This record gives sequence, C-alpha cells and structure tokens, in this order.
Amino acid sequence: MIFIGEKINGTRKVIQQAILDRDVDYIKQVVQEQVDSNADYLDVNAGTNPDRELEDMLWLIDIVQGMTDIPICIDSSSADTLKAALEHVSHTPMVNSINADPARLDAFVPLIAEAGCPVIALALDESKSGMPKDIDERMDNIGRIIEATRAAGIDDSKVFVDPLIMSVGTDQQAGVAVLDCIRAVRESYPEAHITGGLSNISFGLPNRAVVNRTFMTLAIQAGMDSAVCDSSNVSLIESMKATELLLGKDRFCRKYTKAAKKGFVAK
Amino acid sequence: MIFIGEKINGTRKVIQQAILDRDVDYIKQVVQEQVDSNADYLDVNAGTNPDRELEDMLWLIDIVQGMTDIPICIDSSSADTLKAALEHVSHTPMVNSINADPARLDAFVPLIAEAGCPVIALALDESKSGMPKDIDERMDNIGRIIEATRAAGIDDSKVFVDPLIMSVGTDQQAGVAVLDCIRAVRESYPEAHITGGLSNISFGLPNRAVVNRTFMTLAIQAGMDSAVCDSSNVSLIESMKATELLLGKDRFCRKYTKAAKKGFVAK
Repeated sequence: MIFIGEKINGTRKVIQQAILDRDVDYIKQVVQEQVDSNADYLDVNAGTNPDRELEDMLWLIDIVQGMTDIPICIDSSSADTLKAALEHVSHTPMVNSINADPARLDAFVPLIAEAGCPVIALALDESKSGMPKDIDERMDNIGRIIEATRAAGIDDSKVFVDPLIMSVGTDQQAGVAVLDCIRAVRESYPEAHITGGLSNISFGLPNRAVVNRTFMTLAIQAGMDSAVCDSSNVSLIESMKATELLLGKDRFCRKYTKAAKKGFVAK
Repeated sequence: MIFIGEKINGTRKVIQQAILDRDVDYIKQVVQEQVDSNADYLDVNAGTNPDRELEDMLWLIDIVQGMTDIPICIDSSSADTLKAALEHVSHTPMVNSINADPARLDAFVPLIAEAGCPVIALALDESKSGMPKDIDERMDNIGRIIEATRAAGIDDSKVFVDPLIMSVGTDQQAGVAVLDCIRAVRESYPEAHITGGLSNISFGLPNRAVVNRTFMTLAIQAGMDSAVCDSSNVSLIESMKATELLLGKDRFCRKYTKAAKKGFVAK
C-alpha cells in the first residue's frame, strides 16, 4: 500500500490557522507524526484563497523539505501554484489532482508529463455539476483522463485513480458501489494505481476508525493499492498488514510479525 | 452472521478441569459471557474420554438449559452421545459435526434427519489420513456429504459447510485457499450456510485478534455467513457490523449505529 499522508491540509481549520499565524512549530509537529508513520507521500494543501495560496504552498513545502526526504503530494487546483511548486520541490512529487474537466486536463497534464511525476486522477468531471451518479459515469470520466495522460506520454503506472469514496452513512450502497468501481478500474487499467480519501466512507457515522479500517480491507481485496489517509492511525496499519498477510502477500509473515513487534505504529 | 459460541469445550484445559470438578459456577460464568454476547448457538463439547463423555455432555446441557433458551450445538464424534443429547435438549439444536467419512455419515445423518436440525459439515474425510490438501479435495468431500444429506431429506439450508480454516502462520497461502473455497461453496450450494473455526486462521501469530477480525471481513465478502468463535470479542463484533454495513446489508445503518451505542459488546 502506498499511503499519502492527509494531514497538512489548509482546508482543515487548525492547519489554516497555523498557516495564517506562520506557526512553524505546529506544522512541524504534524509533519513529524506522518514522517514517523512512514507515509510514502505527504499531501500539502495550502488552502483555497487564490491571493495567498502560492506563497503559502511554498512556505509549507520549505518546512516539509527541511525535515524529511518523503516526497510531497502537491495538492492544488491552480496551474500557477502547481507550476511553481513543481519547480520548488527537491524530490519527484505526486500531483493532486486532475479530473475529466477538459480545462484542467489541458492546464495540468503537460506540466505533469514534463515533471515525469505520478498524479491522482479523480473519477469526476469538474466542468459538469455534481458528483458522478453511477459507476458508468465514473468509468467514463476515468477513460477520458487516461486518454489524455496516455496522449501526453504518461504511463498508466503513474496514474493513481481515485474512484471517489462517498459516505455509507448517507447512502447504504456507497460501499458496494465504490468496491465495484475499484474492481472495474483494476480490470480496465491493470497498471494504474487505485487510491482514495479513505475516511470519506465513514462521514457522519460513530466509531469511524472501525468503518475506515474495515473498508480498507475490503478495498484492498477489490484492488486498491493506495490511500489518502492518516498513516499514523494504528488501527489502519493493523488492518493493512493483516489484510496483506491474509491475501498471501507477506512471505513468511515477516512484515506482519515485524509490525506487530513495533505495535503497528509505522507503515 | 450466525455465531456459534466456542467456549464450552472440554478439549480446553480449564473446561476439562471444571467438568472433572463438577464446578458448576465456573461453567455458568462461561455460559453467561456467551449469553450476554447474544451467540446464536452455544457449542457444548464434553471432551474426548469415551468412558464419561455421555454423562458429562448431559451434565453440561443441563447447566446451559437452566440458564438460557439459546440452542445448543452438540459437539461430539460419538453417535451414542449424539442420540442421547438429541433426546435431552429442549430446543432444536445444531450438530457438530459430520464429514465425508462413510461410517460417520451412516451413523449421524439419520439421527440429524429425524431431529430436523442443522449440522456442521467439515470438508474432510476422517476415514482418510490427514487434512485435504487442496480445494478440489475439499469440494469433493463436501459434495459427498451433501449427497448424503440430500438423500436423507435434509435441506441444503440446514447444512453449515466448514471449509477448514488453517493457520496463515504455517502456510501463507492458507488465507487465499480458504477464501477461494468459500466462494466455490457459495456458488455450488447457494442455500447452504458457510461457517468455520475463525481463530484457527491466526494460530501461532502475534496479535491474533487483528488477524481474526480482518479474516472475518474478507470471509464475509467471499460468502461466509456464520462462524464458530468467541462472540463476546468486541473487535470481532465491530468488524462484523462494519462489514455488513459496507456490503450494503444494513438499512439506514441501524444495526451498526445501535451496536456502536452499546460499545459493540453484543452481537
């Protein structure tokens, strides 16, 4: 599993305040938690204010890069911010995100192709209103994105498809729907990665960690191999290690027993 | 999920001693834990000493029946003990177990057919040495059992197929193998139940509860709908409720949210 640490996100109130206050210590603390948990990428989102997003993004990137070699996942909807961030990072980053909106594809795909970096591809089309209503619409959006990335010479193995995980608390079939979509993506694009915002599945429900970890097990079986999540959550790490063990992907149970010895505190 | 409480088992040392000492209080305590957890059946195994198994079985049944209406799962390999226990129980019990051994089928199936009760069918043939080596041998054994139960007029819906859950600690493909077998049974015998000794999967591994609960999630998705387990284990109940929710089997999330409110202490 490839874990993309989700915590440095300016749309979260505590992070937004820390950015406004230039509270380096707080940001460092959040970064360190994710470094300790061995996240594969650290998502960095500087918030949605166009007047300051670029400056805040570069400030955040400097803090992260001063602490760790874990690559950054540049999380922005602005092509200008993306371009500047791509020039600013020291290690090949990931980009979060593209979708089937033609304007987004036109602006982002050339930058991503030039940087040779992986990218999260959301199964939606931002130029249309609302979320895709079913698996067909999701697969259609994904198809149009992959067409654009392939045309730009981006290998499918660089694309992290996000099928859009929705809350089972508002739609009881949301779990089944996303698992079906994961299976369809795995079959249609065997080289692509599959990721998603894991904790969305449990929005509005009690004991969310239980639903998140159980969903991860089902999703790994369906073909998901990455998640945007809190990689410092022991419950998630336990389930990930046990799932890989049970699916025959852990020779001599080495990864599971090693993680158990350490209390499942790091990926 | 149909949970068969596994704790009143005379092959466990503490229970064996309590039987020998006629320690009613200890047995009652073990029964009460499983009653509180809302197990669907309480497995009762009086141990393997042929000189006293029948007497001990009836003694145990009396204790259980004095405390609860939860039906008993008569766990014995002796036709004499089974016959006496079937006459002794107040509520339609389950029988644990039959296998493809022709002698066992000849002795047990007529008693089970007459009692009209459900039965656990192990995917092995006790007349041959060793465990079945692969899915084909398991499916062959199951086929011969179902042939016998059908011939005796026992409906498939009364048969709880046990694919034989083995430890992933000794064979890293044991998880994949049993999940494949569960899928094959679900396809070949859609009306049958599928059960198994859940904790076998984690034998010899650290943090067994993590492996057990994760395996249950994968097994439910594959088609398992019952388990022989410790139904008072909160971790198992959490995973069971979350899995059913995520697979679209919990309308308005009612069962999950109700269980969460109660701390997942009862099935």
